[in-house]
Amino acid sequence: MRIREVGPRDGFQNEPEVLPTATKVDLIERLACAGLTRIELTSFVRPDVIPQLADAAAVLEAVRLPASVTASVLIPNERGLESALEHRSKFQEINGFLSASESHNQRNVGRSVAESLAGLGRTFARARAESLRVEAVISTAFGCPYEGRVEPRRVLQIAEQLAELGAQEIGFGDTTGMANPLQVAAFFEEAARALPGVELTAHFHNTRGQGLANVLAALQSGVSSFESSFGELGGCPVPRGATGNIASEDLVSMLHEMGIHTGIDLGRLLDAARAAQQALGRPLRSHLLSAGPVDWQRPPSG
Amino acid sequence: MRIREVGPRDGFQNEPEVLPTATKVDLIERLACAGLTRIELTSFVRPDVIPQLADAAAVLEAVRLPASVTASVLIPNERGLESALEHRSKFQEINGFLSASESHNQRNVGRSVAESLAGLGRTFARARAESLRVEAVISTAFGCPYEGRVEPRRVLQIAEQLAELGAQEIGFGDTTGMANPLQVAAFFEEAARALPGVELTAHFHNTRGQGLANVLAALQSGVSSFESSFGELGGCPVPRGATGNIASEDLVSMLHEMGIHTGIDLGRLLDAARAAQQALGRPLRSHLLSAGPVDWQRPPSG
Repeated sequence: MRIREVGPRDGFQNEPEVLPTATKVDLIERLACAGLTRIELTSFVRPDVIPQLADAAAVLEAVRLPASVTASVLIPNERGLESALEHRSKFQEINGFLSASESHNQRNVGRSVAESLAGLGRTFARARAESLRVEAVISTAFGCPYEGRVEPRRVLQIAEQLAELGAQEIGFGDTTGMANPLQVAAFFEEAARALPGVELTAHFHNTRGQGLANVLAALQSGVSSFESSFGELGGCPVPRGATGNIASEDLVSMLHEMGIHTGIDLGRLLDAARAAQQALGRPLRSHLLSAGPVDWQRPPSG
Repeated sequence: MRIREVGPRDGFQNEPEVLPTATKVDLIERLACAGLTRIELTSFVRPDVIPQLADAAAVLEAVRLPASVTASVLIPNERGLESALEHRSKFQEINGFLSASESHNQRNVGRSVAESLAGLGRTFARARAESLRVEAVISTAFGCPYEGRVEPRRVLQIAEQLAELGAQEIGFGDTTGMANPLQVAAFFEEAARALPGVELTAHFHNTRGQGLANVLAALQSGVSSFESSFGELGGCPVPRGATGNIASEDLVSMLHEMGIHTGIDLGRLLDAARAAQQALGRPLRSHLLSAGPVDWQRPPSG
């Protein structure tokens, strides 16, 4: 079971306030200390567009991670990759992204899907030449807020192209929480056939409360790689008040309760989420933060 | 697929303020209008203990429900049943309850499980003599906050006794959200073997975010009866801030998205939840209230 923590990028990016670099570094190190072995640290985006991540270079330089952690950086374009490569020794993986639906891709990055694929091709080639591992994430893979249904065939064709362009892992994002368990199960069964040798990752949002039900369906279809965010941070909650990413601690709790090993210390992960809560000065919304882990260590009944 | 709406009892009971009878009646009628065909209307409890439901008789007398609705009343004991029977024509079903774990039952109703079973036996006999349908709910069926693990064998033995005492339906309550999908699947498969001819109902809480994942697991094990609460009301949220019952609108949304027919109009159910929100004067927390239903009615991509 592999879990990529995306909170330091996806979460911090969506906060109204800019966290100090030292706070980010502390939180990332707490996540590593909790046993997270895949962490998306930041993104090299234009600081005028996303001031929350303007300190990407400083975060990479300051953070100290054990060798067990695969650190990744979200790369919006070739220029972002060049900036990141100035700190090549600080990360092992890049994440590139596009949307499966034309209108979402257009509104998100101002390009057609074909243009995004061409750009990702160049980015991935450069990254592979630098011996970086490459993940590609396809947003709106289970539905688009502007276009509605997105055909699985279309998503898988894009995924196949991404694999040809060098992606070793492909994440499928349920960007606005439209997926249901039946759809998820059917999709990943088809994806496994279409993409042999590619690591398939599920990135669910809990927008409509089905996040962990979709995780269960994905597990049942053989998926063993997930993305989530500590404290339930981020995930572009739209409309305001809606839930975004599934919370890492809720995911880990369910997996552990099901007897699935993750190598993550749930107590320490919760400590990291509590530290984020304190740093942000507002209550975070994950279920485990409110309820705490299940406590079975009591004398059994009857 | 059968869904029992428990908000008017479980939800209103757990509100700090007492809702006016007319408001309760309006909300119940909205739920019926949305197509809910099983509604727990109130409970005949001691008004000094639960003042929120002191108007049980007035609610029963005032509410106007279509013949398609099976109205039920939660009955804490034989005395409560006698009070309810003064309004016999106003409901078709009673719900009796106990806990699977001794300490939870003791703290909840001040009786041993054996004493509760004896009382339920008398209550059910009287109810059956009045041609009332009988549901029994077993709380802490998947774990107890005081005792930890509760053996499925113990829960099923209690369930068998309840069936012998006249329960036609048995609900299994995950009172503090300790259940996980693997546990749920195994439990209901065993329950179906142990309790032939008894309707088996799942009553999940979303305390740790696994509510709908547990619904999915139960569905896969053949369960087709669920209890939930509109607006995510009630469910004894402990500690404060934790989530209780799964929200009816979140449940219905997932079922509909999976192509499972419920006969419920999700838009009207959301209207009822919004009306409850307005009546209570605070934002309710269901996911659908924030995010709205999935909208697939847009031009498809590619």
